[in-house]
Formats: sequence, C-alpha cells, structure tokens
Amino acid sequence: MKFGRFQLQSRTFFGIVDGKQVVEIEGSPFMSYNPTSTIHALSALKTLIPCEPRNFYCAGLNYAAHIEWGAKRKGIAPKYPEKADVGYRSFNALCATDETLIIPADASDMVQFEGELVAVVGKAAKNLTEANALSCIIGYTLGNDVSERNWQKSDRTLWRAKNCDTWKPMGPFITTGLDPMNLDIEIHMNGQRVAGYNTSKMLFSAQRYIAEITRYMTLHPGDVIWLGTDDATEPNLKHGDVCEIVQKDIGILRSPVVRASA
Amino acid sequence: MKFGRFQLQSRTFFGIVDGKQVVEIEGSPFMSYNPTSTIHALSALKTLIPCEPRNFYCAGLNYAAHIEWGAKRKGIAPKYPEKADVGYRSFNALCATDETLIIPADASDMVQFEGELVAVVGKAAKNLTEANALSCIIGYTLGNDVSERNWQKSDRTLWRAKNCDTWKPMGPFITTGLDPMNLDIEIHMNGQRVAGYNTSKMLFSAQRYIAEITRYMTLHPGDVIWLGTDDATEPNLKHGDVCEIVQKDIGILRSPVVRASA
Repeated sequence: MKFGRFQLQSRTFFGIVDGKQVVEIEGSPFMSYNPTSTIHALSALKTLIPCEPRNFYCAGLNYAAHIEWGAKRKGIAPKYPEKADVGYRSFNALCATDETLIIPADASDMVQFEGELVAVVGKAAKNLTEANALSCIIGYTLGNDVSERNWQKSDRTLWRAKNCDTWKPMGPFITTGLDPMNLDIEIHMNGQRVAGYNTSKMLFSAQRYIAEITRYMTLHPGDVIWLGTDDATEPNLKHGDVCEIVQKDIGILRSPVVRASA
Repeated sequence: MKFGRFQLQSRTFFGIVDGKQVVEIEGSPFMSYNPTSTIHALSALKTLIPCEPRNFYCAGLNYAAHIEWGAKRKGIAPKYPEKADVGYRSFNALCATDETLIIPADASDMVQFEGELVAVVGKAAKNLTEANALSCIIGYTLGNDVSERNWQKSDRTLWRAKNCDTWKPMGPFITTGLDPMNLDIEIHMNGQRVAGYNTSKMLFSAQRYIAEITRYMTLHPGDVIWLGTDDATEPNLKHGDVCEIVQKDIGILRSPVVRASA
C-alpha cells in the first residue's frame, strides 16, 4: 500500500495512492484512519512531504562505494565508520516532490544529490532489537540529501552544507511491505540514469540503526531515518536541471533545480 | 512578560505568568492570543516545555572560558571556532522543568550540565541582518545541554552524547524584553552555585547567529536557538542530584537526576 499526503485548495489530507487515483482517508496512517468514498485524480492534487518528522535522523556514511568515491576525490584513504552513529538533518530543509530545489547564490558549483532510502516511523518505540526493529516502521519513502561539498569541508558542522531551505526533498509516497535491505534505487538527471545501487550494500542495516537509536532515544510516529547513499553523486546540480530519485515501488522524487541570483 | 505552556488534566494551554499566578490565554503567543478571565495558581499546573520546536539549533562552542576549560581537561590547546556554524539537537531529548533527567545505565560518570540561554523564534524570518536579527525573537528561555563527555569523544556525531531522551531540559518560561547579551546565568547543584557567567561573553552574538542562519534557512515560529555555555561544567551529574539553571528574569529550570539501573 502507498500512503501520500496531499493538498487541495486549503485542505490537507492523507490518501491511499492506487495508480493514478487517490482514495482520501479520514485520520492519518500514523494514528487510525478510515478510507472515505472520495476519490481524486492524483494529478489534481499537490503532493506534500508524506510526513512531518519531529526527529530527522540521517545515517550519513553507510555504503562503501560512496565512501571510496569521496576519499578518492579528496586524495585520501577511505575511512569506514566503525559504529552506526546517526546524525541529524533539520525540518526547514524538507520539500516535496516537484518543488523547486534552490541553490543559494553563494554556494559553489559542488552541490550534489544523494539519493537515499528513508524509513518512516509509524509508532513509538524504545529498546528494540535488530530482530524486531522493523516493527516500528510503517513504510519507506525516498530522500535527496543534497550537499555542498566545499561547505562540508570548511564548516565545523553540516548546517548549510546539508540543511539549506529546500535541500531535503522527501517523497513522493510511503510504501508499506518492502524489504529495506533489497531495493534498487536510481538517480536520474535530466532523464538520464547517472547513478544507482541496491540497498543490500548498506554497511549498517536499517535494523541495526533502529536498534542503536532506540537504546537511547524514543522513536515517534512520523520520525524519519534516512539511510545513506551509495555510488558517486555526480554530475553537480546546476540551474535548469531536473534531478529524480527513482524506486519502482515508491515512485519518483522529482526536483527541478534553480540557482538563486546574487 | 513571561509566557508558559501548561497542562491541567488532559488540557494543554499557554498562559501569562504573573508571580505565583497564571492567566490562561486563548490561542498562542506564536500566533495571536487573547487573555481569558481564567486564573490558575502556578503550583496547580504542570509546566510543559514552553514551545515545541520544529528546528532545534544549538551554537555549540560559543564562550572562551568553556573552550579553555575543555581543552585543559583534554591536555590540548584551546581551539576557538572561526565562524558562527550552528549545530543541531533533537526534539526527542526535550523535557520540561521538574521532569526527571535519566542517565542510561551504560553512560560513563562523565555526564555534565551545560546551562544555556535559548532564543525562541516568534515569527518566520529569512535574510535578517545583525541589526534586525532580534525582530524575529519572541523572548528567551533556558536550556540544559546535558553531555556525556566520553561519547562526545568516541562517536562520529553527537547523537547519544547530547540527545538521549530527557537530556535537553528547556524552560521554565519565555520572557520577553530581555537583552540576550547581558544576562547572568548560574548553575546550581543541590542548592549550591557551581558555575555561572554573563552572556556578554559570547564569541558570536545571538544577533550574529540569527543573521548567519537566516542567510540559508527560514526560521519558523517555535524554533529555538541554544546559545552555548561558558565556564566549567562540573561536578558530574549523578543519581539523586538536582541541577538548576537559574536566571532571575526567566526563572529556574530544575532537573532531578536519576541513573537507570542496568
């Protein structure tokens, strides 16, 4: 099943996506809900981010080929994380599919996509094990962890390197019933495939991250855990590009790119 | 004026704190509000965190004496930040005044307070200058940026070193009309003053942080910016302690400490 969050005029609601149609639901997939008899054409609705996370976790370095690509670019030896230490991103940066990704005028040319699988928390959880970790997950969506590589090196934190307004496209939908450790994710730029990987290559599994987080933190409905990217993340994003993160069971997370003028 | 957020049975509301009384308001200080004729005894209410931030910014290293204390403890030269790069904390860790601060069983003894001034955003803002930065701030509250010093060194990020459940006490109230650059903040442990400083010693002012953040990010009503701590942050927090962050115009942020058993 695919859940989405939609806007029609001033009204916001959740729905179940069925091909090109959306069955409006009463309530929320994060609480309780009932399908209504109202059916919309998907194309008649604005698709919003599929949830509004209070806590926004991000695995960071979680695939060997991406770490090796980054190290080679810097001329250093690859350094793999030893533990599933999770990082954070911030709510302001989220934007929905088809919303414009805006590159600030003072960013360098080194602004890059990172197409990621995102686990969406469906119910509160603490102290899970790897064996029951996925019991708190309602489903999976896609994220684009847009990154400015120069700021990533020059700044003490990842604040502007990763969290500029519109730099965290997320969506389009939340799909239930998937195996997070065996999904093909592709990145397309202007209609051409430029990168791709299978999530089976995660260094630390979704289950491991969830078990680690819940040793210390309560996961809450709507929280999201971005699970990292593999492969190179080139070419750079530039004005006029369209970047798409593609997964066949979740959909296409599409971001038209604009560079702000100085 | 002092705003607070309160619970009475199952009802949650904002109020204006006047000595030992609370005037209940309709609406919210972050939107529009009207005082009602309902007056409560402050002692009859549960005081909640004064706002629910979507974005939780934290200045990190922002006072010289604290940086020098930390460097001396590690036997290294002090390293001052060159820019106002902001960091993040996470919502799960927030807790209200008088709520129990829980140290997980596997944390070391090196769990320490960091008493901080917190700027609370009252309205959406982008591209502010230092001159008009404070125009988006509704008022100020207090925060305790509780930190596990060993995890801070051993982990790739500050996730569990700073963001365990209950490790971000915030409150008690939001006070308007203060000068953020001239406030005396004290930390009391079990009734004794153990540390203190004046906010005039910030390396980067509240105004500077806000101007920097809003170059890239939109601030939203209810967002918080924790402004760092000065001075040593000892003694360590241990089971049975009561830690208080004290500022005369804001109030006392009080945290009884419990260590979880293994």
